[in-house]
Amino acid sequence: MGGFILIDRFTNTTVAAGLLHFALRRAENIHWQAVEVDKNARAGLKGQRPALVWFTGLSGAGKSTIANLVEKKLHLQGFHTYMLDGDNVRHGLNKDLGFTEADRVENIRRVAEVAKLMVDGGLIVLASFISPFRAERQLARDLMGEEEFIEVYVDTPLAVYAKARRGELPHFTGIDSPYEPPESPELHLDASGTVPAETSAELVIVHLRQAGILTAPSEG
Amino acid sequence: MGGFILIDRFTNTTVAAGLLHFALRRAENIHWQAVEVDKNARAGLKGQRPALVWFTGLSGAGKSTIANLVEKKLHLQGFHTYMLDGDNVRHGLNKDLGFTEADRVENIRRVAEVAKLMVDGGLIVLASFISPFRAERQLARDLMGEEEFIEVYVDTPLAVYAKARRGELPHFTGIDSPYEPPESPELHLDASGTVPAETSAELVIVHLRQAGILTAPSEG
Repeated sequence: MGGFILIDRFTNTTVAAGLLHFALRRAENIHWQAVEVDKNARAGLKGQRPALVWFTGLSGAGKSTIANLVEKKLHLQGFHTYMLDGDNVRHGLNKDLGFTEADRVENIRRVAEVAKLMVDGGLIVLASFISPFRAERQLARDLMGEEEFIEVYVDTPLAVYAKARRGELPHFTGIDSPYEPPESPELHLDASGTVPAETSAELVIVHLRQAGILTAPSEG
Repeated sequence: MGGFILIDRFTNTTVAAGLLHFALRRAENIHWQAVEVDKNARAGLKGQRPALVWFTGLSGAGKSTIANLVEKKLHLQGFHTYMLDGDNVRHGLNKDLGFTEADRVENIRRVAEVAKLMVDGGLIVLASFISPFRAERQLARDLMGEEEFIEVYVDTPLAVYAKARRGELPHFTGIDSPYEPPESPELHLDASGTVPAETSAELVIVHLRQAGILTAPSEG
C-alpha cells in the first residue's frame, strides 16, 4: 500500500491525498477473500482447541484458587485463556441480577452464553461458579460442541460441608441452598484440604492435555 | 514434570502411580507465581493492544460487511479478533430480549459488557450494531479504558437515508426509529456507495495501526 498526494502546479498547495490499495498486487487479494475467520481459524492462530472448563463446587472449596493456578500455568505455556467468575460478571454484565433462584439461573445462563462466544473466539475459558443445579450445568454443556465442555467438580467432602452448613466455617457462604453434585464430571478433584491446590491445578492441565485441548488441531 | 510408579518388590505388581511436580526445579516456580494473568498479559501474548471497534450506522449501510473485511485482514496479519453482531448475540445471550426501546438498550448494554470482558481477555473486538442512540454508544465508551474504544461511523448520506425511510430501499430495515449520528467518531466512513467496502476496511486498519492497537506494547 502506498500513499499519494496531489499538488496544484500553479499554487503549489496540496489539493488531495489518498492511499493506493493493492494496485500492483491484485493477485494476492484473491487468497484472503476465501478465508473464513471462524472458530477453527481463531483457535488455530492460538495453537489450541477452544473449550470451556467449568469449575463447580461449594463456596470455599477452592474453585477460584485452582482455576487461577490453571490459568497461570496455561498462560506461561503460551495458551490463550480467559477466566469468568463472580468478580468480573456480577459487577458488569449481570449487575441487574439479584440472588433469587430465578436470577441465579439467569446468571449462569448468561455466563454460559458468554463462554460460548469466547470459545467461538478460540479461547480456553475457565469458569468458576458454585452453579449448584445440575440443570444449569447441563445447559452450559448443551451450548458447547462435542468435547468442548469439561466439568471439574471441586469436591468438598461431606464432613466439611456439614460443618459449613452448621455455620462453623464462617467463610463458607451461600450453602443454605442445596447443592447437586455432578454425576459424571470430566474431572473430580479432592478438595478436602489434603491435596494442595497446586497439585489439583496440575491434574487439570494433565486432563486438558490428554483431552487434546492443548494441541492445535493442525499439530494433532 | 515426570511420572513415577511404585512396584511391590515381592509381588511385582504396581501399587501406586503419580506425578512429580517440579521436584527438581523449585526455583523456577517462584517466577510464575508472581505472574498475574491480567489484560496486559493476555494482550501481550497476542502481540496487540486490546480494543473495542464499534461500528455504528443505519441498517444496510455496510457495517457488517466492512467489519468482516477488517476481521479477515487482521486475522491474516496474525491479530486476535472477535466479531460481535446481531447474529451471534440475539440467538444466544440476548435471546430473552425483544425489540422494545428498553430491550434494545439492554441489548447494547450486554454487548458492551461482553466486549469489555473480551477486551480484558486481550482481544480486538469488532462490534457491529445499528446502536442508534448516542447514550448507549457513550455507555459502551465509558466501560472501556482510555483509547480502547474506537467508534466507526458508517455514514449513509442523507439522500440514501431519506429514500430508505420512504420505503424505496426494501433491504433497509429498522429505520422507522430515529438515528442519532455520532458527533466525534474516531473514524467517519463514507457509505454512500462510491467507496468500496474494501477501501473502508483498509481505512479502519490504517486507523488501528496509527492508534497503536496493532503493535504490542513491548514492541511499541
